[in-house]
Amino acid sequence: MSTVGNSTNIFWQESPIGKLERQKLLNQKGCVVWITGLSGSGKSTLACSLSRELCTRGKLSYILDGDNLRHGLNKDLGFKAEDRTENIRRVGEVAHLFADAGLICIASLISPYRKDRDACRAMLPDSSFIEASLLLNGSYPDYVVST
Amino acid sequence: MSTVGNSTNIFWQESPIGKLERQKLLNQKGCVVWITGLSGSGKSTLACSLSRELCTRGKLSYILDGDNLRHGLNKDLGFKAEDRTENIRRVGEVAHLFADAGLICIASLISPYRKDRDACRAMLPDSSFIEASLLLNGSYPDYVVST
Repeated sequence: MSTVGNSTNIFWQESPIGKLERQKLLNQKGCVVWITGLSGSGKSTLACSLSRELCTRGKLSYILDGDNLRHGLNKDLGFKAEDRTENIRRVGEVAHLFADAGLICIASLISPYRKDRDACRAMLPDSSFIEASLLLNGSYPDYVVST
Repeated sequence: MSTVGNSTNIFWQESPIGKLERQKLLNQKGCVVWITGLSGSGKSTLACSLSRELCTRGKLSYILDGDNLRHGLNKDLGFKAEDRTENIRRVGEVAHLFADAGLICIASLISPYRKDRDACRAMLPDSSFIEASLLLNGSYPDYVVST
Protein backbone atom coordinates (compact mmCIF):
# COMPACT_ATOMS: atom_id res chain seq x y z
CA MET A 1 0.00 0.00 0.00
CA SER A 2 1.40 3.41 -0.83
CA THR A 3 0.32 6.91 -1.60
CA VAL A 4 1.32 9.15 -4.47
CA GLY A 5 1.21 12.76 -5.56
CA ASN A 6 -0.80 15.24 -3.56
CA SER A 7 -3.37 12.69 -2.52
CA THR A 8 -3.29 10.35 0.46
CA ASN A 9 -6.17 8.40 -1.02
CA ILE A 10 -4.47 6.51 -3.85
CA PHE A 11 -4.15 2.87 -2.86
CA TRP A 12 -2.72 -0.05 -4.77
CA GLN A 13 -5.46 -2.37 -5.99
CA GLU A 14 -4.43 -6.01 -6.23
CA SER A 15 -5.99 -7.98 -9.06
CA PRO A 16 -7.43 -11.40 -8.20
CA ILE A 17 -6.05 -12.74 -11.47
CA GLY A 18 -2.30 -12.49 -11.29
CA LYS A 19 0.55 -12.71 -13.73
CA LEU A 20 0.96 -16.44 -13.12
CA GLU A 21 -2.63 -17.22 -14.08
CA ARG A 22 -2.27 -15.18 -17.26
CA GLN A 23 1.00 -16.89 -18.13
CA LYS A 24 -0.65 -20.27 -17.60
CA LEU A 25 -3.53 -19.26 -19.85
CA LEU A 26 -1.09 -18.13 -22.56
CA ASN A 27 1.47 -20.88 -21.96
CA GLN A 28 4.27 -18.34 -22.09
CA LYS A 29 6.15 -15.98 -19.83
CA GLY A 30 5.64 -12.23 -20.13
CA CYS A 31 8.73 -10.22 -20.86
CA VAL A 32 10.07 -7.15 -22.65
CA VAL A 33 12.39 -7.28 -25.65
CA TRP A 34 13.79 -3.76 -25.94
CA ILE A 35 15.26 -3.00 -29.37
CA THR A 36 17.31 0.16 -29.55
CA GLY A 37 19.36 1.73 -32.32
CA LEU A 38 19.56 4.70 -34.61
CA SER A 39 17.04 5.53 -37.29
CA GLY A 40 17.55 3.11 -40.17
CA SER A 41 19.43 0.54 -38.11
CA GLY A 42 16.76 -2.11 -38.61
CA LYS A 43 14.80 -1.94 -35.37
CA SER A 44 11.38 -2.25 -37.01
CA THR A 45 12.55 -5.02 -39.34
CA LEU A 46 13.83 -7.03 -36.38
CA ALA A 47 10.71 -6.32 -34.31
CA CYS A 48 8.42 -7.46 -37.14
CA SER A 49 10.44 -10.61 -37.87
CA LEU A 50 10.47 -11.54 -34.20
CA SER A 51 6.74 -10.96 -33.87
CA ARG A 52 6.04 -13.07 -36.96
CA GLU A 53 8.24 -15.92 -35.76
CA LEU A 54 6.65 -15.90 -32.32
CA CYS A 55 3.20 -16.01 -33.89
CA THR A 56 4.10 -19.09 -35.94
CA ARG A 57 5.08 -20.72 -32.64
CA GLY A 58 1.73 -19.80 -31.11
CA LYS A 59 3.15 -17.11 -28.84
CA LEU A 60 1.43 -13.78 -28.28
CA SER A 61 3.59 -10.72 -28.77
CA TYR A 62 2.86 -7.06 -29.24
CA ILE A 63 5.07 -4.39 -30.77
CA LEU A 64 5.34 -0.98 -29.13
CA ASP A 65 6.82 1.10 -31.90
CA GLY A 66 8.28 4.42 -30.80
CA ASP A 67 7.13 6.26 -33.91
CA ASN A 68 3.61 4.83 -33.73
CA LEU A 69 3.26 5.83 -30.09
CA ARG A 70 4.10 9.40 -31.03
CA HIS A 71 0.77 9.39 -32.89
CA GLY A 72 -1.10 8.39 -29.71
CA LEU A 73 0.09 8.07 -26.13
CA ASN A 74 3.10 10.32 -26.69
CA LYS A 75 1.62 12.77 -29.14
CA ASP A 76 1.96 15.60 -26.61
CA LEU A 77 5.74 15.18 -26.48
CA GLY A 78 8.33 16.91 -28.65
CA PHE A 79 12.00 16.24 -29.16
CA LYS A 80 13.65 18.20 -26.37
CA ALA A 81 15.88 16.16 -24.06
CA GLU A 82 13.26 16.00 -21.29
CA ASP A 83 10.54 15.06 -23.75
CA ARG A 84 12.68 12.23 -25.13
CA THR A 85 13.25 10.96 -21.59
CA GLU A 86 9.53 11.14 -20.85
CA ASN A 87 8.80 9.38 -24.14
CA ILE A 88 11.02 6.47 -23.12
CA ARG A 89 9.69 6.42 -19.56
CA ARG A 90 6.11 6.05 -20.81
CA VAL A 91 7.03 3.31 -23.28
CA GLY A 92 8.84 1.53 -20.43
CA GLU A 93 5.78 1.78 -18.20
CA VAL A 94 3.47 0.45 -20.91
CA ALA A 95 5.91 -2.34 -21.82
CA HIS A 96 5.93 -3.29 -18.14
CA LEU A 97 2.11 -3.51 -18.17
CA PHE A 98 2.16 -5.72 -21.27
CA ALA A 99 4.76 -8.04 -19.72
CA ASP A 100 2.64 -8.18 -16.57
CA ALA A 101 -0.32 -9.12 -18.76
CA GLY A 102 1.74 -12.11 -19.96
CA LEU A 103 2.69 -10.89 -23.43
CA ILE A 104 6.08 -10.81 -25.07
CA CYS A 105 6.29 -7.06 -25.54
CA ILE A 106 8.66 -5.90 -28.26
CA ALA A 107 9.59 -2.24 -27.74
CA SER A 108 11.28 -0.72 -30.75
CA LEU A 109 12.55 2.81 -30.37
CA ILE A 110 15.52 5.12 -30.52
CA SER A 111 16.61 5.19 -26.90
CA PRO A 112 20.22 6.26 -26.91
CA TYR A 113 20.83 6.87 -23.24
CA ARG A 114 21.65 3.96 -21.02
CA LYS A 115 20.18 5.66 -17.97
CA ASP A 116 16.77 5.85 -19.68
CA ARG A 117 16.91 2.20 -20.74
CA ASP A 118 18.12 1.14 -17.31
CA ALA A 119 15.17 2.93 -15.72
CA CYS A 120 12.88 0.79 -17.90
CA ARG A 121 14.89 -2.34 -17.09
CA ALA A 122 14.54 -1.61 -13.38
CA MET A 123 10.76 -2.00 -13.62
CA LEU A 124 11.14 -5.74 -14.31
CA PRO A 125 13.18 -8.68 -13.03
CA ASP A 126 16.47 -8.92 -14.94
CA SER A 127 15.48 -12.11 -16.76
CA SER A 128 12.34 -10.42 -18.12
CA PHE A 129 14.08 -7.52 -19.85
CA ILE A 130 16.08 -8.42 -22.93
CA GLU A 131 17.94 -5.60 -24.63
CA ALA A 132 19.04 -5.67 -28.25
CA SER A 133 21.21 -2.74 -29.35
CA LEU A 134 21.60 -2.62 -33.12
CA LEU A 135 25.07 -1.68 -34.25
CA LEU A 136 26.02 0.61 -37.10
CA ASN A 137 29.16 -0.36 -39.00
CA GLY A 138 30.02 -2.98 -36.42
CA SER A 139 30.18 -0.68 -33.43
CA TYR A 140 27.95 1.46 -31.24
CA PRO A 141 27.88 5.16 -31.94
CA ASP A 142 29.34 6.84 -28.85
CA TYR A 143 26.03 8.20 -27.67
CA VAL A 144 24.39 4.77 -27.57
CA VAL A 145 26.67 3.64 -24.78
CA SER A 146 26.77 6.97 -22.98
CA THR A 147 25.01 7.41 -19.69
CA MET B 1 1.36 7.62 -43.37
CA SER B 2 1.41 10.78 -41.32
CA THR B 3 3.73 13.07 -39.47
CA VAL B 4 3.50 14.43 -35.95
CA GLY B 5 4.96 17.08 -33.72
CA ASN B 6 7.94 19.04 -34.90
CA SER B 7 9.33 16.21 -36.96
CA THR B 8 8.56 15.26 -40.52
CA ASN B 9 10.28 11.94 -40.02
CA ILE B 10 7.76 10.04 -37.88
CA PHE B 11 6.08 7.39 -40.01
CA TRP B 12 3.49 4.83 -39.09
CA GLN B 13 5.01 1.37 -38.92
CA GLU B 14 2.60 -1.42 -39.86
CA SER B 15 3.05 -4.67 -37.95
CA PRO B 16 3.08 -7.89 -40.01
CA ILE B 17 1.05 -9.58 -37.29
CA GLY B 18 -2.27 -7.82 -37.09
CA LYS B 19 -5.15 -7.70 -34.70
CA LEU B 20 -6.95 -10.52 -36.48
CA GLU B 21 -4.03 -12.93 -36.10
CA ARG B 22 -3.79 -12.12 -32.41
CA GLN B 23 -7.54 -12.57 -31.93
CA LYS B 24 -7.33 -15.95 -33.67
CA LEU B 25 -4.45 -16.97 -31.42
CA LEU B 26 -6.42 -15.95 -28.33
CA ASN B 27 -9.81 -17.07 -29.62
CA GLN B 28 -11.39 -13.84 -28.46
CA LYS B 29 -12.02 -10.31 -29.65
CA GLY B 30 -10.07 -7.42 -28.15
CA CYS B 31 -12.16 -4.71 -26.56
CA VAL B 32 -12.30 -2.17 -23.75
CA VAL B 33 -14.68 -2.36 -20.83
CA TRP B 34 -14.60 1.11 -19.27
CA ILE B 35 -15.89 1.18 -15.70
CA THR B 36 -16.53 4.64 -14.32
CA GLY B 37 -17.98 5.86 -11.04
CA LEU B 38 -17.14 7.72 -7.88
CA SER B 39 -14.69 6.52 -5.28
CA GLY B 40 -16.33 3.70 -3.34
CA SER B 41 -18.93 2.93 -6.01
CA GLY B 42 -17.55 -0.57 -6.59
CA LYS B 43 -15.46 -0.13 -9.75
CA SER B 44 -12.58 -2.29 -8.54
CA THR B 45 -14.91 -4.96 -7.20
CA LEU B 46 -16.68 -5.18 -10.56
CA ALA B 47 -13.38 -5.13 -12.48
CA CYS B 48 -11.95 -7.95 -10.36
CA SER B 49 -15.10 -10.09 -10.59
CA LEU B 50 -15.24 -9.64 -14.35
CA SER B 51 -11.56 -10.51 -14.75
CA ARG B 52 -11.97 -13.62 -12.60
CA GLU B 53 -15.05 -14.79 -14.51
CA LEU B 54 -13.33 -14.24 -17.86
CA CYS B 55 -10.32 -16.23 -16.68
CA THR B 56 -12.52 -19.18 -15.71
CA ARG B 57 -13.82 -19.09 -19.28
CA GLY B 58 -10.27 -19.12 -20.66
CA LYS B 59 -10.37 -15.49 -21.78
CA LEU B 60 -7.42 -13.16 -21.31
CA SER B 61 -8.21 -9.84 -19.68
CA TYR B 62 -6.13 -7.16 -18.04
CA ILE B 63 -7.21 -4.51 -15.56
CA LEU B 64 -6.00 -0.94 -15.94
CA ASP B 65 -6.72 0.48 -12.53
CA GLY B 66 -6.65 4.27 -12.36
CA ASP B 67 -5.11 4.35 -8.89
CA ASN B 68 -2.43 1.79 -9.79
CA LEU B 69 -1.45 3.72 -12.90
CA ARG B 70 -0.87 6.80 -10.75
CA HIS B 71 2.04 4.85 -9.25
CA GLY B 72 3.57 4.31 -12.71
CA LEU B 73 2.61 5.72 -16.10
CA ASN B 74 0.70 8.63 -14.60
CA LYS B 75 2.85 9.33 -11.57
CA ASP B 76 3.84 12.74 -12.98
CA LEU B 77 0.22 13.90 -12.97
CA GLY B 78 -1.61 15.67 -10.18
CA PHE B 79 -5.27 16.38 -9.66
CA LYS B 80 -5.80 19.65 -11.49
CA ALA B 81 -8.49 19.57 -14.20
CA GLU B 82 -5.94 19.34 -17.03
CA ASP B 83 -4.01 16.61 -15.23
CA ARG B 84 -7.19 14.59 -14.74
CA THR B 85 -7.97 14.92 -18.45
CA GLU B 86 -4.43 13.86 -19.36
CA ASN B 87 -4.69 10.96 -16.90
CA ILE B 88 -7.81 9.69 -18.68
CA ARG B 89 -6.34 10.31 -22.14
CA ARG B 90 -3.31 8.16 -21.35
CA VAL B 91 -5.43 5.35 -19.88
CA GLY B 92 -7.57 5.49 -23.03
CA GLU B 93 -4.51 5.26 -25.27
CA VAL B 94 -3.12 2.29 -23.32
CA ALA B 95 -6.53 0.57 -23.23
CA HIS B 96 -6.65 1.00 -27.00
CA LEU B 97 -3.25 -0.71 -27.32
CA PHE B 98 -4.40 -3.62 -25.14
CA ALA B 99 -7.58 -4.06 -27.18
CA ASP B 100 -5.47 -3.95 -30.35
CA ALA B 101 -3.28 -6.67 -28.82
CA GLY B 102 -6.44 -8.81 -28.54
CA LEU B 103 -7.08 -8.55 -24.82
CA ILE B 104 -10.27 -7.68 -23.01
CA CYS B 105 -9.01 -4.56 -21.30
CA ILE B 106 -10.91 -3.54 -18.18
CA ALA B 107 -10.27 0.12 -17.38
CA SER B 108 -11.45 1.09 -13.92
CA LEU B 109 -11.17 4.73 -13.01
CA ILE B 110 -13.01 7.83 -11.85
CA SER B 111 -13.70 9.53 -15.15
CA PRO B 112 -16.60 11.85 -14.53
CA TYR B 113 -16.65 13.87 -17.73
CA ARG B 114 -18.38 12.45 -20.74
CA LYS B 115 -16.14 14.35 -23.15
CA ASP B 116 -13.07 12.59 -21.71
CA ARG B 117 -14.71 9.15 -21.93
CA ASP B 118 -16.00 9.89 -25.42
CA ALA B 119 -12.47 10.79 -26.52
CA CYS B 120 -11.38 7.32 -25.37
CA ARG B 121 -14.39 5.70 -27.03
CA ALA B 122 -13.52 7.45 -30.30
CA MET B 123 -10.24 5.51 -30.49
CA LEU B 124 -12.13 2.25 -31.04
CA PRO B 125 -15.05 0.98 -33.09
CA ASP B 126 -18.28 1.43 -31.12
CA SER B 127 -18.77 -2.28 -30.56
CA SER B 128 -15.33 -2.54 -28.95
CA PHE B 129 -15.92 0.05 -26.24
CA ILE B 130 -18.32 -0.97 -23.50
CA GLU B 131 -19.02 1.61 -20.82
CA ALA B 132 -20.32 0.76 -17.36
CA SER B 133 -21.23 3.74 -15.19
CA LEU B 134 -21.81 2.73 -11.58
CA LEU B 135 -24.71 4.50 -9.95
CA LEU B 136 -24.89 5.91 -6.45
CA ASN B 137 -28.28 5.67 -4.75
CA GLY B 138 -29.91 4.65 -7.99
CA SER B 139 -28.92 7.68 -10.03
CA TYR B 140 -25.90 9.34 -11.52
CA PRO B 141 -24.41 12.27 -9.67
CA ASP B 142 -24.87 15.31 -11.89
CA TYR B 143 -21.23 15.57 -12.79
CA VAL B 144 -21.08 12.02 -14.14
CA VAL B 145 -23.42 12.90 -16.97
CA SER B 146 -22.07 16.38 -17.55
CA THR B 147 -20.09 17.14 -20.64
